[in-house]
Amino acid sequence: MSPYHPLTEAEAIEYARGLDGVFPREARLVCREIGDGNLNLVFHIVDESSGRSLIMKQALPYAKIVGESWPLSLDRARIESEVLQIEGSLCPDLVPHVYRFDKDLYLTVMEDLSDHIIMRKGLMECRRYPLFAGHIGRFLARTLFFTSDLGMDQKEKKRQAGRFINPDQCKITEDLIFDEPYTDAPNNSFDPNIRGEVEAIWADRELHLQVAMLRQKFLTEGQALLHGDLHTGSIFVREDSTKVIDPEFAYYGPMGFDIGAVMANLLLNFAGQEHWSADAKARTDYRNYLLETVRGVWTEFEANFRTLWNEQGTDRMFATPGFQDAFLRRLFRDAAGFAGCKMVRRIIGLAHVADIDAIPDPETKAQAERLALAIGTALIRSHSSLTSVDEVLETARKAVQ
Amino acid sequence: MSPYHPLTEAEAIEYARGLDGVFPREARLVCREIGDGNLNLVFHIVDESSGRSLIMKQALPYAKIVGESWPLSLDRARIESEVLQIEGSLCPDLVPHVYRFDKDLYLTVMEDLSDHIIMRKGLMECRRYPLFAGHIGRFLARTLFFTSDLGMDQKEKKRQAGRFINPDQCKITEDLIFDEPYTDAPNNSFDPNIRGEVEAIWADRELHLQVAMLRQKFLTEGQALLHGDLHTGSIFVREDSTKVIDPEFAYYGPMGFDIGAVMANLLLNFAGQEHWSADAKARTDYRNYLLETVRGVWTEFEANFRTLWNEQGTDRMFATPGFQDAFLRRLFRDAAGFAGCKMVRRIIGLAHVADIDAIPDPETKAQAERLALAIGTALIRSHSSLTSVDEVLETARKAVQ
Repeated sequence: MSPYHPLTEAEAIEYARGLDGVFPREARLVCREIGDGNLNLVFHIVDESSGRSLIMKQALPYAKIVGESWPLSLDRARIESEVLQIEGSLCPDLVPHVYRFDKDLYLTVMEDLSDHIIMRKGLMECRRYPLFAGHIGRFLARTLFFTSDLGMDQKEKKRQAGRFINPDQCKITEDLIFDEPYTDAPNNSFDPNIRGEVEAIWADRELHLQVAMLRQKFLTEGQALLHGDLHTGSIFVREDSTKVIDPEFAYYGPMGFDIGAVMANLLLNFAGQEHWSADAKARTDYRNYLLETVRGVWTEFEANFRTLWNEQGTDRMFATPGFQDAFLRRLFRDAAGFAGCKMVRRIIGLAHVADIDAIPDPETKAQAERLALAIGTALIRSHSSLTSVDEVLETARKAVQ
Repeated sequence: MSPYHPLTEAEAIEYARGLDGVFPREARLVCREIGDGNLNLVFHIVDESSGRSLIMKQALPYAKIVGESWPLSLDRARIESEVLQIEGSLCPDLVPHVYRFDKDLYLTVMEDLSDHIIMRKGLMECRRYPLFAGHIGRFLARTLFFTSDLGMDQKEKKRQAGRFINPDQCKITEDLIFDEPYTDAPNNSFDPNIRGEVEAIWADRELHLQVAMLRQKFLTEGQALLHGDLHTGSIFVREDSTKVIDPEFAYYGPMGFDIGAVMANLLLNFAGQEHWSADAKARTDYRNYLLETVRGVWTEFEANFRTLWNEQGTDRMFATPGFQDAFLRRLFRDAAGFAGCKMVRRIIGLAHVADIDAIPDPETKAQAERLALAIGTALIRSHSSLTSVDEVLETARKAVQ
């Protein structure tokens, strides 16, 4: 019989006490389960004597939001812990440290980041993170470069891709992002106030064609080991620190998907600023901050990525003049297209974001949703001819005029 | 200790005698090793009493052409036997039947095709195979469609891709096709008479840029389970029959690579007709036959593939109007580009083809080589803007004017 079972808080304390050299013998351990309770249990364990703490994250075998009818592979917990360790070897300051992974319990013991907050919450409070673009640009550049054919042994890359085949998690993305929002699917969930806009998207075959192109990229282009779910709820921040968590959707896919995810979630908050800003002036200022952050994500990524490529590129043919420029042009287009898909799905599809869903006034909320759809569909439509991140900023600015 | 060792002919007979229900008890078995002796042993075993026969193919752990310094993964034998069985389930008339695979000896027992000849040899004898384009078009359409996200369960496709990760064989392709011919690499081997043309290719950065794009596709685009080495030496033919063999380079890659391989090898024979045709009239006639076959390979593939997609496509988004046309346009371009790379490498790189290397007169041979390079480089240069197979035919016709 499998030793796997979801731990209780009491069992979590027992487990933590058994970890070698983590807590002192006289530790007074207190445990709280702080997960959203949907896909995973997350135990926060503190020793009240020493103040030492850690996180134990355990995978659940189904999505509670949908029920046991939606089984999930527990293997995603192994993938998450291994990816955190790869990311940790490439950017030790930008992910939580992993102490151990228990393959029987599908449980990862890792660094406690309680001194950070979830970035989505910070953005809803209109806080600013001046180092974020630099941090995430470096994270994206290093994790994507060093797991790709550009920056690692190409045979080992193939073997590594085999260790991160993640069919159940990918299927969730394929359904929720690249299919259901574009049809009247039972999983969809959207505000009745915007039914007109949603039905127009369902009928828009030109838009579907662009989404199908992006879906195909997601299904077939194994460029790099992606985080796979890099929204602002997967990022912990302080003003001086950024930590990327939760890579359980990791797999070998198109690099633009991770970059686009960050952009999309900044732009979703941009749309949500209909509500969160104190007044019109504050709204304009904060939206400018968000757009400058979108720009910074791309420019910091690009600068880091080009430097890595020039200094540590492993492929002779890929050093051919013009190839790097062509690669980055296409990658930017991919990122913008994926960003558009990620925005649309958060308005029409199953899983929403608090930046918009938590807006109390129905008309303000609907206005934010229309904004997000306008920006998202514009990015999807135009992505394959974009040449500069300025055009993304312009798309967002035009939508609020 | 591993039970693997290369069999002798006597051991091969003993092994065949032990196969259940294949040969009668009183069989008088005779064995000949008929492989090229480079990568594999191929035992042809006949019962002189009943006339029954079979083939036993055993992988060697290194490439004899280079020596033990070039180790090969024996796992390619497992891949080959499994792929033959997948292909056999999709096109039973177009591959040899596999009786069994011995995972300890890396040995596949399969149908004997001695009543066929290797297609390359047939083309060097200027024979015609009127059914070939239809056969190979159907083979390509069915094997590529039903192993892709278009025609199979997308989760199972990911798991299947994991079973066909083939790093050592892919590395050979990546080096010999997408790198070495474009630089003064020690593995290269070319006729000193064409050194001028070869050096021009080494210096041509625009050409390298296109090759780098195709190299990237080969490294990252996991569209379908490819044969991976579909040249005319991997195809057995009779006038009324086509059998595809030797899928030991199989992996999940870009569909155009297999289609381009067939086109390239027809065009290499086209170049070789400087010698093989009896006279100018015969040469023109046979070259027209070859070009019509190139056309037929694409048109038969395309017709079969579109029918399968329309009738058995599994992906809702990929049924969006316009997607199929865009997919096939891009696939054709890929195929033409890969065909060009496959032609160039057979003239400059390590491994050549008899269609050209067996030409006795040095000047005629050099002329055939120049022709192959002219067609190959033109296809590489133009591939990303081609729209019709007529343009490929035109490229070949222009080269001989």
